[in-house]
Amino acid sequence: MSEQELRNAVAAADAAINREDFEQVMRFYADDAMLVLQPGMIARGKEQIREAFRRIAEHFHHSLQVHQPEMRVLMSGDTALVLARAELRAVLGDGQPWQATRRSTYVFRRDPQAGWLCLIDNSYGTDLLDAPA
Amino acid sequence: MSEQELRNAVAAADAAINREDFEQVMRFYADDAMLVLQPGMIARGKEQIREAFRRIAEHFHHSLQVHQPEMRVLMSGDTALVLARAELRAVLGDGQPWQATRRSTYVFRRDPQAGWLCLIDNSYGTDLLDAPA
Repeated sequence: MSEQELRNAVAAADAAINREDFEQVMRFYADDAMLVLQPGMIARGKEQIREAFRRIAEHFHHSLQVHQPEMRVLMSGDTALVLARAELRAVLGDGQPWQATRRSTYVFRRDPQAGWLCLIDNSYGTDLLDAPA
Repeated sequence: MSEQELRNAVAAADAAINREDFEQVMRFYADDAMLVLQPGMIARGKEQIREAFRRIAEHFHHSLQVHQPEMRVLMSGDTALVLARAELRAVLGDGQPWQATRRSTYVFRRDPQAGWLCLIDNSYGTDLLDAPA
């Protein structure tokens, strides 16, 4: 049940990203969440994360679509590690289609009131080990 | 400072594993920790995790050595996602050397008294996405 709630939260967050409803997206992040924008570039807190989503949307000319058709959830009490295959699609400025697949890692905590909130959003997964520390 | 404490805890846990001091190893796990033994096979709680380490040690004829020369730490408050390149070496029953490299994912929480404790120990990292759910 709890795992299904978490899967629902991830799917709802992706749907909100895809329609660029970033106020809704922010409801799935904890106040002190961190997001790995690129290896070595990190957004901390809701203000920076919201701004990061706005910039990403602009970068992709408002065409980015995220789907995570496959997930594994590892839970310990109110903390969960989510492993997901993230499929990203967009159309670039020159009209060319763009796509990428990532193996993402997220850490969520369950808040008694707000439900599952993302604390650590690292869509690069263990590929960060290949980037400079 | 806090990140260095976490790196020290991981190194100390590895050293304890390598000398098969599993009581010491258990000090680095939270009471409700979970360990992915193999894809689909999970140990929960200190009793099961201690027993898992004993079986792993036997499987490798008490020769297993773990080193994690490279790590990335992503922190949000008292929660951290650790990404590590884990190098495992052992000598098998037939005297042949065995080795493996994994890209591991761990979730730690900082306890005010006990310091950083592992909640989720998944040495398979995002490779779990390749295994049956």
